[in-house]
Amino acid sequence: MLKRHWKTLLVSSVIVILSGIIVALLIFMKNQPPEKRGITALIEIANMEADSALWGVNFPNQYTTYLKTETNNQRTTYGGSEPFSKLDEDTRLVELFAGNPFSIDYKEDRGHRNALTDVRETKRLNDKTPASCYSCKTSDTPALWAEMGVENFSATTFKDMSYRIDQPIGCANCHEANTMRLIVTNPALDEALKKQGKNWQSFTRQEMRTLVCANCHVEYYFQGDKKVLTFPWENGTHIEDIEQYYNDYGFSDWQHKTSGAAMIKIQHPEYEMFTAGSTHFNAGVACADCHMPYTRDGSAKFSSHDVKSPLFSPAQSCGTCHTDVNYVVERVKIIQDSVHTTLLATEDALVAAIQAISQAASYASVDKAKLEEARKLHRAAQVRWDFVAAENSMGFHNPEEALRILAAATDLARQAQIKAIEAMNLQVSK
Amino acid sequence: MLKRHWKTLLVSSVIVILSGIIVALLIFMKNQPPEKRGITALIEIANMEADSALWGVNFPNQYTTYLKTETNNQRTTYGGSEPFSKLDEDTRLVELFAGNPFSIDYKEDRGHRNALTDVRETKRLNDKTPASCYSCKTSDTPALWAEMGVENFSATTFKDMSYRIDQPIGCANCHEANTMRLIVTNPALDEALKKQGKNWQSFTRQEMRTLVCANCHVEYYFQGDKKVLTFPWENGTHIEDIEQYYNDYGFSDWQHKTSGAAMIKIQHPEYEMFTAGSTHFNAGVACADCHMPYTRDGSAKFSSHDVKSPLFSPAQSCGTCHTDVNYVVERVKIIQDSVHTTLLATEDALVAAIQAISQAASYASVDKAKLEEARKLHRAAQVRWDFVAAENSMGFHNPEEALRILAAATDLARQAQIKAIEAMNLQVSK
Repeated sequence: MLKRHWKTLLVSSVIVILSGIIVALLIFMKNQPPEKRGITALIEIANMEADSALWGVNFPNQYTTYLKTETNNQRTTYGGSEPFSKLDEDTRLVELFAGNPFSIDYKEDRGHRNALTDVRETKRLNDKTPASCYSCKTSDTPALWAEMGVENFSATTFKDMSYRIDQPIGCANCHEANTMRLIVTNPALDEALKKQGKNWQSFTRQEMRTLVCANCHVEYYFQGDKKVLTFPWENGTHIEDIEQYYNDYGFSDWQHKTSGAAMIKIQHPEYEMFTAGSTHFNAGVACADCHMPYTRDGSAKFSSHDVKSPLFSPAQSCGTCHTDVNYVVERVKIIQDSVHTTLLATEDALVAAIQAISQAASYASVDKAKLEEARKLHRAAQVRWDFVAAENSMGFHNPEEALRILAAATDLARQAQIKAIEAMNLQVSK
Repeated sequence: MLKRHWKTLLVSSVIVILSGIIVALLIFMKNQPPEKRGITALIEIANMEADSALWGVNFPNQYTTYLKTETNNQRTTYGGSEPFSKLDEDTRLVELFAGNPFSIDYKEDRGHRNALTDVRETKRLNDKTPASCYSCKTSDTPALWAEMGVENFSATTFKDMSYRIDQPIGCANCHEANTMRLIVTNPALDEALKKQGKNWQSFTRQEMRTLVCANCHVEYYFQGDKKVLTFPWENGTHIEDIEQYYNDYGFSDWQHKTSGAAMIKIQHPEYEMFTAGSTHFNAGVACADCHMPYTRDGSAKFSSHDVKSPLFSPAQSCGTCHTDVNYVVERVKIIQDSVHTTLLATEDALVAAIQAISQAASYASVDKAKLEEARKLHRAAQVRWDFVAAENSMGFHNPEEALRILAAATDLARQAQIKAIEAMNLQVSK
């Protein structure tokens, strides 16, 4: 009897002890700090750290692909990142930019890692060039803007700012340190979005994978005496909206040496062109989907930071969505050939307009009001042409928009030519 | 012992008899005629039978949808099949077609079943109108061409041929009787393909689902005194190839009443526009995929013969390939709006050219050689514009091609205007 009781006692005790251990373990686990999301950083990165090599310690895959933008510069049919001279390729450009530094030096852009070298070596610089020209060429700017304030930064000359800057475009131009969140780092972009009633903090990650490119790949100008970098987006981002903004503001980049028109030089408006109802943008595709496709190195899968033309990686860039990559590459060629042919016709029309205006201006009997109208038409035509010409995709980012704009540009250029002839005040010979 | 032998004998006999029956059955089955492929026709259809109602006995689903083309005529934003007057919509057309019957009567086409009624009612007819104008308006033509020969048919007047014709466009325009094979029925198409070294007999069925539309939906002209229907494709089917063909042949449809230029009227070149490297054609899509989508009626699945704008059936027409139909319909709108805006700008340029040429021609001191150049430029500009304007898709069949052509058309129209001003021989006033 005692023996039987002893056994029951033993089993009960074991159960009680085990239950206690389990409860204690559960309480212990519940009180552990929550596991950190994401990856564990090897080193801490300072806020707005300019040196991408430090970020690279934590993100070696992204960093090593980013390094390739320094040396991996090749040419595509209409672009790429080989620094060929656009002026040698197409001598009309010398006439179109007469009086503007772009008529002296206009090279194809190289990869991100070369931006600082290239901006320092361009022949477009002079002693008055403002520090604003550094805005998009270095990862030093976010910290400098925070330290100096944008106005003081802009009011400094390029030359005087040079000793504070030694990094090319890098991690800090698009990422928040440590969280690696994609962020707007350019105050001009933040300001331009605010004026449109938009707040990028509410954008989705996929939207940010396009918007961070707009930190730089946009049309801009330097506003006022302090040369503050500004995006002309108050009316919208279509070329007509931008033109209206510049006209209302009375802005011009330079006076055309031959036609005398007050001109606008457009700069790489990739973001504006792509987001103007393009098929890819409307389908939810981001810049990074094509230009920074997911890639593999061994077992690691990451977004390539060797940002370049998708024509170098169609399988990765296009193949994620399109099953027939050869077909897609052929379409790029068809589209770009059409846009290129149309672009050159616009240039011929612009050159003819410039010559007619110059001829009209040489006549003592010229109708000055009509001459001025002709110059305004020249400005309107060339700002449209340049919106397509300076945009780095030969129309592919938005084929219908590019061709629509070029058709209008040619029309306006020919109207400028006709108005110049009218201004000559010619008479029917008796 | 006998009993045992008797049993063996019975079993053996049964086996032998059964084997004999099986062998006989197999021989009987082997000698049966092979089962017919395809469906069993209820009635036999004569070769080139013009009456679609007879074909409809065998193919009631296809026939009843075909019947809808008579009454189911609705308008889309830029087209459709409601017979609105294009001249009322856009009064520039009256100036552009001055001297041509299209300046008097130019309506949107209705569905296939109305083709015969509409061609007989158009105000563009006169007593000299050739029977060739019936070519694409009736299913009576294949049999008439076979019976009379194309030259005799063409040499007859429209009026004299009328009593032989009472059917609208129907089955015999695209199908071989009984086999229902898709075939080229228009001798002009057969001839045009031969001149390009192509034999449609070797085309795949999917290729034929585009090619049969080219029996009619093409640019054509009436060649020589016998007014033989001919496709101007000898150099190719791009607008530049067609223009070159007409220039070499010295052909013009009419002399422009205001500018005096020898003009070409382009007719519905849907096939040429679609096949000029469009994204859908290059991806292997046929006209019928979008315009005659597979549809259901109860358990029957068949290709709808209510041929019309896919904008009336985006779920069936686009949804087979595109998952987001709303997105696709939105893209059609973006593309067509861009093309329409550009098209109207081309028309303004053409009207200005016509007026300038007319003015120049009124001066006694006009430079006749330059005036002639201006007229040639007018012809070149308007043939391009019309290639897009007369094409029934407002550019959607090939957006890049349509916009490329319109940009060139505007450029040429403005050059015509400038050349006319030069022809005025104006002098600088002293």
